Amino acid sequence: MIQQKQPLYIQVHHSDNVAIVANAGGVEEGTSFATGIIAIERIPQGHKIALRSIERGEEIYRYGEVIGYAEEPIEKGAWVHEARMQLPIPPTLDNLPLSNLSLNAQVEPSKRTFFGYRNSNGTVGTKNILGITTSVQCVAGVLGYAVERIKKELLPMYENVDDVISLTHTYGCGVAINADGAEIPIRTITNLSQHPNFGGEVLVVGLGCEKLQPLVITNQENDIISLQDQQGFEANVREIMKRADEKLRLLNKRSREQVPIHELVIGVQCGGSDAFSGVSANPAVGFAADLLVKSGATVLFSEVTEVRDAIHLLTPRTVNEEVREALIREMAWYDDYLAKGNADRSANPSPGNKKGGLSNVVEKALGSIVKSGTSPIVDVLAPGERVRKKGLNFAATPASDFVCGTLQTASGIHLQVFTTGRGTPYNLQAVPVIKVSTTTNLKEKWHDLIDLDAGTIVTGEATIEEVGTALFEYILQVASGEAVTWADRWGIANDLALFNPAPVT
Amino acid sequence: MIQQKQPLYIQVHHSDNVAIVANAGGVEEGTSFATGIIAIERIPQGHKIALRSIERGEEIYRYGEVIGYAEEPIEKGAWVHEARMQLPIPPTLDNLPLSNLSLNAQVEPSKRTFFGYRNSNGTVGTKNILGITTSVQCVAGVLGYAVERIKKELLPMYENVDDVISLTHTYGCGVAINADGAEIPIRTITNLSQHPNFGGEVLVVGLGCEKLQPLVITNQENDIISLQDQQGFEANVREIMKRADEKLRLLNKRSREQVPIHELVIGVQCGGSDAFSGVSANPAVGFAADLLVKSGATVLFSEVTEVRDAIHLLTPRTVNEEVREALIREMAWYDDYLAKGNADRSANPSPGNKKGGLSNVVEKALGSIVKSGTSPIVDVLAPGERVRKKGLNFAATPASDFVCGTLQTASGIHLQVFTTGRGTPYNLQAVPVIKVSTTTNLKEKWHDLIDLDAGTIVTGEATIEEVGTALFEYILQVASGEAVTWADRWGIANDLALFNPAPVT
Repeated sequence: MIQQKQPLYIQVHHSDNVAIVANAGGVEEGTSFATGIIAIERIPQGHKIALRSIERGEEIYRYGEVIGYAEEPIEKGAWVHEARMQLPIPPTLDNLPLSNLSLNAQVEPSKRTFFGYRNSNGTVGTKNILGITTSVQCVAGVLGYAVERIKKELLPMYENVDDVISLTHTYGCGVAINADGAEIPIRTITNLSQHPNFGGEVLVVGLGCEKLQPLVITNQENDIISLQDQQGFEANVREIMKRADEKLRLLNKRSREQVPIHELVIGVQCGGSDAFSGVSANPAVGFAADLLVKSGATVLFSEVTEVRDAIHLLTPRTVNEEVREALIREMAWYDDYLAKGNADRSANPSPGNKKGGLSNVVEKALGSIVKSGTSPIVDVLAPGERVRKKGLNFAATPASDFVCGTLQTASGIHLQVFTTGRGTPYNLQAVPVIKVSTTTNLKEKWHDLIDLDAGTIVTGEATIEEVGTALFEYILQVASGEAVTWADRWGIANDLALFNPAPVT
Repeated sequence: MIQQKQPLYIQVHHSDNVAIVANAGGVEEGTSFATGIIAIERIPQGHKIALRSIERGEEIYRYGEVIGYAEEPIEKGAWVHEARMQLPIPPTLDNLPLSNLSLNAQVEPSKRTFFGYRNSNGTVGTKNILGITTSVQCVAGVLGYAVERIKKELLPMYENVDDVISLTHTYGCGVAINADGAEIPIRTITNLSQHPNFGGEVLVVGLGCEKLQPLVITNQENDIISLQDQQGFEANVREIMKRADEKLRLLNKRSREQVPIHELVIGVQCGGSDAFSGVSANPAVGFAADLLVKSGATVLFSEVTEVRDAIHLLTPRTVNEEVREALIREMAWYDDYLAKGNADRSANPSPGNKKGGLSNVVEKALGSIVKSGTSPIVDVLAPGERVRKKGLNFAATPASDFVCGTLQTASGIHLQVFTTGRGTPYNLQAVPVIKVSTTTNLKEKWHDLIDLDAGTIVTGEATIEEVGTALFEYILQVASGEAVTWADRWGIANDLALFNPAPVT
């Protein structure tokens, strides 16, 4: 894959005593790296090399964290493989490290800005979209027909409005609406309807007899259209178009203005991961996340099943006991949810993900949480909850790309950064998704889908800091509408995928 | 609502000793019906009148079935309300009536035919559609873009092909693919890809690294496109269009021919029910279902949560113990599923549904199962299973309209008959949905969405037999492409909604 001639390894954190061999095919015994370290045996690509001699029982550090203990003395330049490592005890939720109360989000007053849309409720948007919410799937056909006509007949008259989208989903009726967990899809739909990119112009299309009554989504009766109140199909299309026209007129008055960076809310996610996700793309995202948090902005990281095995490394990063407990509560909820469904957690990572040098589940999870950077965790959001605090947040969501994307959107992200090793064309309707490749091969193959290549970190052409900084700048450009992601250029996006842990009836 | 001047009641079954008052506002004491029966007290609309005197403890029959026992002597012409009835014991699953082994689907060799598309695998289609299956939601954006271009640039060249649809869904990755219940969405997607209306031309678009590997859906590698195998977005769109073009060329050779009626598979469902669902539309559908079964055709009825409380009336209709046990197994599975999710079954019917004369849950369920007519039940399908036997089948599905529609489509229905009291614009992509209104009011209000008015039964303008026969004839016309439903005329349809009882990860 990677055509790297010079021997190269990747050290993610300055305190790490192991690093990852980057060269395609690995390195042979006797290979000398630029740092002076010499491989004392053959080491495959993606696997670990000892950067100094490690005593028996000593901690093995990667990502600046303990991923195991040396089973035997390990010489400098040796291959640090599974057989030479003792697994850390899997983290239970009963005895996790306490919050490091000295932690504070170190915000350095930043003069950086972006061009966003100020909303009357104080939020800021990065797009200007008419988002039409639905209370139940029954209405999807009629609304789809109406939206097509709105885009063709009305949208061209409102040049400041970017798009019209229908927020359709499979929830709303035929569901156990009072069962445990039903609050998640209901909260998600409600918060989606009020996404800052919709400028506070809520419009809900419902049927009339559905279980999820539109008044649960909005308390403004004027913002609701009930299909059963109208005289048939054509009357309904006319009514939707009329109401959309009113909203478009209001949205058209919005314009971009210079806004301090601390108004920005960014989500991070990874999908289709490979051995380099935790080496190139995720660390670069982590660096950008730190830059954002230091500038006063907000970053959401997620994916419960991908962080669960590194949870003992996250609890000390919480700013207080309340946040720590909320984090543990979300893990426990998910443990219970998976147990009820007889889901085998160990079967969760795909077999392909298990190859390529990841010695254990802690190392895998570390590769994922590195996207969160090093900032303290200021708040924990239950699935689909609106963001409340600036700084680094853990937004509890499944790891499923489209479900996580839907929930982070409901939480109020302006933009998502998505790292991928194998490649996915995934995109969101309401917010742009910046796709970062873990290798240059993927960027070259999917030249018209990948926005930023972090593979240059693997080849040594760039540092994590350089790619992270470039990503930070690109985020501001996309948020300002000055740059457009590939997926947005093609106009492709994934449908909403709600998380409904409650039964269908 | 109903402007019926003549006093009128509706008797569904000849052995019933109660009937439903049809007149708006009910009837006053002393009202004389055309049959000579006189109301001896005021009876509200939708409520029951005694057709003969009923002794204390005697069975009260509606739909030809026991819905309760007289708590006190009831005079002819009296109001048979809740307080005068004893509830039958709620059916447990341990001691249900045995199969009536003398039952046989009485098929009268029919010369009736329709015009369908014969497929090489022996099945018959009623539409000619290129259905493009997806193995994972990641691909939805790219496929949506490609399908729009296919419809614009390729479809017009193939005049015998009706449509191109993408079978997108939220399954495929980020799911516990080995957990209990995961077989349901996997089977559903697989069977959808081979729906007879797609002419056996399977095309699966996958990503590459997803958990639901396309080879699970089809064993023909040639029928699979993996986005990760192509060089980016434009290359993927080109590849999808090229492969679609090949399939369209084959589909274009299909043409309608005269086919015996016994090849037809019809699904029945109700949604947005009102007090008249069990009085007008559902009995008419039941009559049509009987006509279909007697002609040798296949009818699927569904909605576990709507038949559960009348299950003791269905087990004797099963043709043998194996079918009876399968029916009980599906009920038990759902009981367990709802219990695990802490869903309250009694909260399931909406409060609005409980008004209007339905004395108890058995009566409510009877109103639903009356759609199945009176034929013996020859087979029971687990959710999404392909239909195996001609005659009346119980296809176990949730009652959710769109989930039931998706699962019945996977089972292989050619057409769905959908009764509605309050009105829903619901439609399916792959098969037409005939919408039958329970009242003329709805048909008049939604004149451009409702296909057939069963409200004429309520007003006495038509009998159940007449409306049922008209529906039977209309089914053959729609199946033959000679009539087009309102929703198909507008080109509106609901998205697929898979039933996934297993966890999201």
